Amino acid sequence: MNNRGSRFGPGAEFDLISRLHDFDSELPPGVSLGSGDDAAVLEGGWVVSTDLCVEDVHFRREWITDKEVGYRAATAALSDIAAMAAAPVGLLVSIAAQRGGAFDLEQVQAGILEAAGKAGASVIGGDVSTSPGPFMVDVVALGKSTSPVRRDGAKSGGEVWVTGSLGSSAAAVRVWRDGGTPNEALRSAFVTPEARVNEALYIAKDLFAHAMIDISDGLIGDAGHIAASSGVKITLNALDIPIARAAINHLGRTEALRYALAGGEDYELCFVTDPGTVDPLHFLDRYGVTVTKVGSVTEGEGVWLKEENGTLSAFVSGGFDHWAVEDRLTERES
Amino acid sequence: MNNRGSRFGPGAEFDLISRLHDFDSELPPGVSLGSGDDAAVLEGGWVVSTDLCVEDVHFRREWITDKEVGYRAATAALSDIAAMAAAPVGLLVSIAAQRGGAFDLEQVQAGILEAAGKAGASVIGGDVSTSPGPFMVDVVALGKSTSPVRRDGAKSGGEVWVTGSLGSSAAAVRVWRDGGTPNEALRSAFVTPEARVNEALYIAKDLFAHAMIDISDGLIGDAGHIAASSGVKITLNALDIPIARAAINHLGRTEALRYALAGGEDYELCFVTDPGTVDPLHFLDRYGVTVTKVGSVTEGEGVWLKEENGTLSAFVSGGFDHWAVEDRLTERES
Repeated sequence: MNNRGSRFGPGAEFDLISRLHDFDSELPPGVSLGSGDDAAVLEGGWVVSTDLCVEDVHFRREWITDKEVGYRAATAALSDIAAMAAAPVGLLVSIAAQRGGAFDLEQVQAGILEAAGKAGASVIGGDVSTSPGPFMVDVVALGKSTSPVRRDGAKSGGEVWVTGSLGSSAAAVRVWRDGGTPNEALRSAFVTPEARVNEALYIAKDLFAHAMIDISDGLIGDAGHIAASSGVKITLNALDIPIARAAINHLGRTEALRYALAGGEDYELCFVTDPGTVDPLHFLDRYGVTVTKVGSVTEGEGVWLKEENGTLSAFVSGGFDHWAVEDRLTERES
Repeated sequence: MNNRGSRFGPGAEFDLISRLHDFDSELPPGVSLGSGDDAAVLEGGWVVSTDLCVEDVHFRREWITDKEVGYRAATAALSDIAAMAAAPVGLLVSIAAQRGGAFDLEQVQAGILEAAGKAGASVIGGDVSTSPGPFMVDVVALGKSTSPVRRDGAKSGGEVWVTGSLGSSAAAVRVWRDGGTPNEALRSAFVTPEARVNEALYIAKDLFAHAMIDISDGLIGDAGHIAASSGVKITLNALDIPIARAAINHLGRTEALRYALAGGEDYELCFVTDPGTVDPLHFLDRYGVTVTKVGSVTEGEGVWLKEENGTLSAFVSGGFDHWAVEDRLTERES
């Protein structure tokens, strides 16, 4: 779910529609959180989000199997509710597909069911239509949470952490766009990401996270969503970013850092806690997933990056250009 | 929301995916009703449905303004939860649109907001993406219901009723496909249908409806969903079908009857009650909407039509061909 700072670049109409979704000030009865976070929160602990996946925008047919199309679309939606610290329950899946079997819908569905099953959710409904153009799948994820973690709770003095390593997914796209074939480590980051469901529940309950988001727009962008909605300044340390080894091997460290910061679609978690709360070894032991402190929260605004040469750069709209990853498949909300 | 008997015709893959959604036997905790009805029902009284609308499948650009595209898509989703006797609360709207303003997204959103506002709902989230092909909008409707009315409660001895009049929406499509311009009565049925929210709440609470569905697949098809899921036989009387006057004027009575029975997208309600429960005059007085008894429920299976010449025809898969409306915009779940 989006409606956050648009990454659509020049398409002013997409900024517009993103803004038009922002109705936080007039939430209907029974809705405790609306647009502007990963998911909406409903009375009774329900958390609901929707994530749209479009052929040739979010993936290309020649890169990814039909099963992976389904798996990835479901994971993207599940990751949104995981980032609220919700336990996934059900998915509604809307599919528009060409006639004549261009996509094997049984395979797409198998991928959706596999991702849902891993996250503990079932498919409970949906819609299907023909499409005269690209294949599209819109996945609605429904989950339950006793105490959703929002984006707007980051406090000065907090530490900024991320799970896993970053940059592989965008690097895989780069390789494909260059006409190559990404190796398995890069490819799997793009096609079979994991929704960090159990990690998010632990981060919320045991680490008392102030704020949390999944990294689908790139760390800079997603930390920016936390900073903006919390009214704080986040400073990231370039030297501390957990760049994916596969991305470094393929792109070199400088370029891989750019991908780790701005590439997006890693579906890792970025969260803010009180200092000293997180034990990375315990986290690794418990989930087999690394967790890395990448920055800090102070009074102020925006995302700042302490680069490896000591330079401090501010991320403002239109700025940070040398960190942009132009060769993502497309600019988009994701 | 669909996953009901597919109307996709020859596209076996769509039947397949419809079947793959059917997981009623293994509903996750917190979900009391899944695929196979208009909407899923969640613990706490939440009702949720999703409805997909695709350019050149559900509408054509030259027929309908951008605002009407949004209005119609939202109404289709709202009608699904209305048919469960739920009060609409919120919408999540996912839009895939071409770059460059082919569609005015502010107008689309205005139409969505107008339909939502009429139904008492707000837009609480969504997703946006570019589309390299047709415009698509997937609307998730969330509502609350204290006692949802399902499809599977029809009992032998019940009466079958419909609200409003039928056939105009499909007749409008027929006129457009023939190269003409439908008159305002036909056109408005297609572009600005009403979700029968208040009527459905009354039908559920005051008329104790056994079963209810919205007529998006055509009366024969939607009565068929009630019959199949309730394990009963429904007999419709052709002479009693409330054919829309505008459809009769344009198509003649025989053809208009065919459209009223099989055309779909009227978004009226079809419901089953105990005999003698419904007072049409009171209903008209209260809502300004007619309500007509069109048939009866008995033991057996399927939908049967008592034609005007007294012939009794059974609707079975592949049968009823002379009642099919081939010139609907497309075969589809809707």
